Amino acid sequence: MFADKMILRIPGPTPIPPRVQQAMNQPMIGHRSGQFSELFARTAKRLKPYFGTSQDVFILAGSGTSALEMSVVNTLQPGEEAVILVSGAFGERFAKICERYGVIAHRLEVPWGKAVTPDLLQAFLSDKPQVKAVFATYCETSTGVLNPIRELAQVVRQHSDALFIVDAVSCLGAVACEMDAWGVDIVVTGSQKAFMLPTGLAFLAASERAWQVIDQKKPLAFYLDLKAYRKSLAENTTPYTPAVSLVFGLDEVCSMLEEEGLPAIIKRHELMRDMTRAAMRALNVPLMAEDAYASPTVTSCDPQGAFDAEELRKVLRTRHNVVIAGGQQHLKGKIFRIGHMGYCEPLDVLQVIAALELSLRQIGAPVELGAGVKAAQEVLFAHV
Amino acid sequence: MFADKMILRIPGPTPIPPRVQQAMNQPMIGHRSGQFSELFARTAKRLKPYFGTSQDVFILAGSGTSALEMSVVNTLQPGEEAVILVSGAFGERFAKICERYGVIAHRLEVPWGKAVTPDLLQAFLSDKPQVKAVFATYCETSTGVLNPIRELAQVVRQHSDALFIVDAVSCLGAVACEMDAWGVDIVVTGSQKAFMLPTGLAFLAASERAWQVIDQKKPLAFYLDLKAYRKSLAENTTPYTPAVSLVFGLDEVCSMLEEEGLPAIIKRHELMRDMTRAAMRALNVPLMAEDAYASPTVTSCDPQGAFDAEELRKVLRTRHNVVIAGGQQHLKGKIFRIGHMGYCEPLDVLQVIAALELSLRQIGAPVELGAGVKAAQEVLFAHV
Repeated sequence: MFADKMILRIPGPTPIPPRVQQAMNQPMIGHRSGQFSELFARTAKRLKPYFGTSQDVFILAGSGTSALEMSVVNTLQPGEEAVILVSGAFGERFAKICERYGVIAHRLEVPWGKAVTPDLLQAFLSDKPQVKAVFATYCETSTGVLNPIRELAQVVRQHSDALFIVDAVSCLGAVACEMDAWGVDIVVTGSQKAFMLPTGLAFLAASERAWQVIDQKKPLAFYLDLKAYRKSLAENTTPYTPAVSLVFGLDEVCSMLEEEGLPAIIKRHELMRDMTRAAMRALNVPLMAEDAYASPTVTSCDPQGAFDAEELRKVLRTRHNVVIAGGQQHLKGKIFRIGHMGYCEPLDVLQVIAALELSLRQIGAPVELGAGVKAAQEVLFAHV
Repeated sequence: MFADKMILRIPGPTPIPPRVQQAMNQPMIGHRSGQFSELFARTAKRLKPYFGTSQDVFILAGSGTSALEMSVVNTLQPGEEAVILVSGAFGERFAKICERYGVIAHRLEVPWGKAVTPDLLQAFLSDKPQVKAVFATYCETSTGVLNPIRELAQVVRQHSDALFIVDAVSCLGAVACEMDAWGVDIVVTGSQKAFMLPTGLAFLAASERAWQVIDQKKPLAFYLDLKAYRKSLAENTTPYTPAVSLVFGLDEVCSMLEEEGLPAIIKRHELMRDMTRAAMRALNVPLMAEDAYASPTVTSCDPQGAFDAEELRKVLRTRHNVVIAGGQQHLKGKIFRIGHMGYCEPLDVLQVIAALELSLRQIGAPVELGAGVKAAQEVLFAHV
């Protein structure tokens, strides 16, 4: 087993393509140089299609959570009210951030593994006309659920004056996002998922409607003050020191995404989702998300006691050098999650399924070797 | 001129050593893996000597400014009062962060190019017993002044109960810092200066005394909540996604720093400072900082109208591929700054001086070619 040939199939960070790695190896340059300004302005513009927006996209040195917080501290004031759609660990994080700043958080919770449906949201909003913002998670990484953002946006638009703010960290760049057309006000994401970069950058775009609110508010923080980023971006720079080497990489990532084209990227991820799900069904491993709300980027499986998810992960890691994710919070130790996004192709999915089958047998779980692979192959064959 | 052979002599970001670059090229790993935990715990411990502390050092995905803000939002509450020592652009940033959170900022300002002396601080503090924190800048990057932190700490300790919080972004790892012995409560720094990494990481350490205050306060922000970082570091991890590839690099940086040894590193930087200053004196270019307060990491020069600083920088950049920094804020266009820190050796200083002499002649300034180089060589010769 080659130690450096680890197969990383978690829902982020995802593997770095060699040409992106190479781009990040460029010699360091000054972050206030003309060379960096040109690079920065170009990459910021190249991100727009993945958000589906004509608005500015801001690039922040920080993790996804810093961008979630940025969407809160620029749009709300203490004492104001917000609705948070909580379908897992990351929805709950939005609520915690709001509460840290004295924002009253009304949680619309669904069981982990379920999506928040438009009907649920409409009912929940009906007696809360005072709400200033609705926060949703596009892909809930902890469960593999893709919430129906387009439909949820419609509900917010028709039944409320609130801003609609979306955490798209673990799916943007791999799924459709039409921020402007759908009426989403703020979308945030991170670099280490479908954008195939190391962790360390976060991206945010805001609608005109959001800017009207932001312009009237005093920002509640400093490093995350969006108005400072807007002022700097107009001059092709950042208010504070940007993560230069990651921006080198981002520029190359944009080239890769443009070469493949967003429609093809979206199809590739849907295909990998369908292959993974077909394999799990063939192996009798229960899936957490329903078909209608299954994320194209991550699949969660709940063995429900048929075998030990942690034992499976351990054998995959130690005997096959394949890394998949476990559960978070109350699902820790109970479920496993397979990431299939970014620098990942259908054949990579076949590989991880094959290793998973071997590992299932190695931990003594009932499994027919090849059954999952065959089911996934059938899905792939029908597509190519 | 080789386009990729740019000579970067600004006060950060600084050049990346090849072996650090190589370390950052390791394949991505999961940030919740045992492999990352081990790496993370090791590097956090290896940072302690540069802070001069036995306390934990926290590693944050963000730029230096995010760490400055972290030192504010965990130690102060709105309406509380702080003293800010302002000797340039970065001192002023501390004040602005405090004010963003409703902290009352008393500015002790000195002209740019001057240091804040212990006497000044003592007098300023004498009628402000209510002050909860004193913020200082160790190396004021905008002027090349190294404030006397050790002596300032003594004043704070003897004349106040306030916490003493220090921005050491542009010097830590290149100058002495004995946080515990000097009685400094919080020290923050960034990755892209003496630590020879790309931008994107910030580091912070807090004294026991600081922790007593922090434990009693409600943090004013979420991503920058120090208690969350302490809880996670105890488990060898981070509360939010860490910048994995930069931590790979940091581990290698620590190896380099340990191989050279901190005393030798400090001497090397002092030598480069002395060489640069001797050269500038020989070239009749006025220095901004006095000898007693000159930073070993960056030298600011003020031609005072004898020639155009921006023209000099332009010729250096376009004809010699040497990049030095200009002035910030009201000194924009008036001064120039030479960075000599991190992956930089005495011979690199001779090179930048030689290029500077050529450029001075090219812009028509009176200059004797070789005079600055000779003066710097004399300093070097006396040391080797």
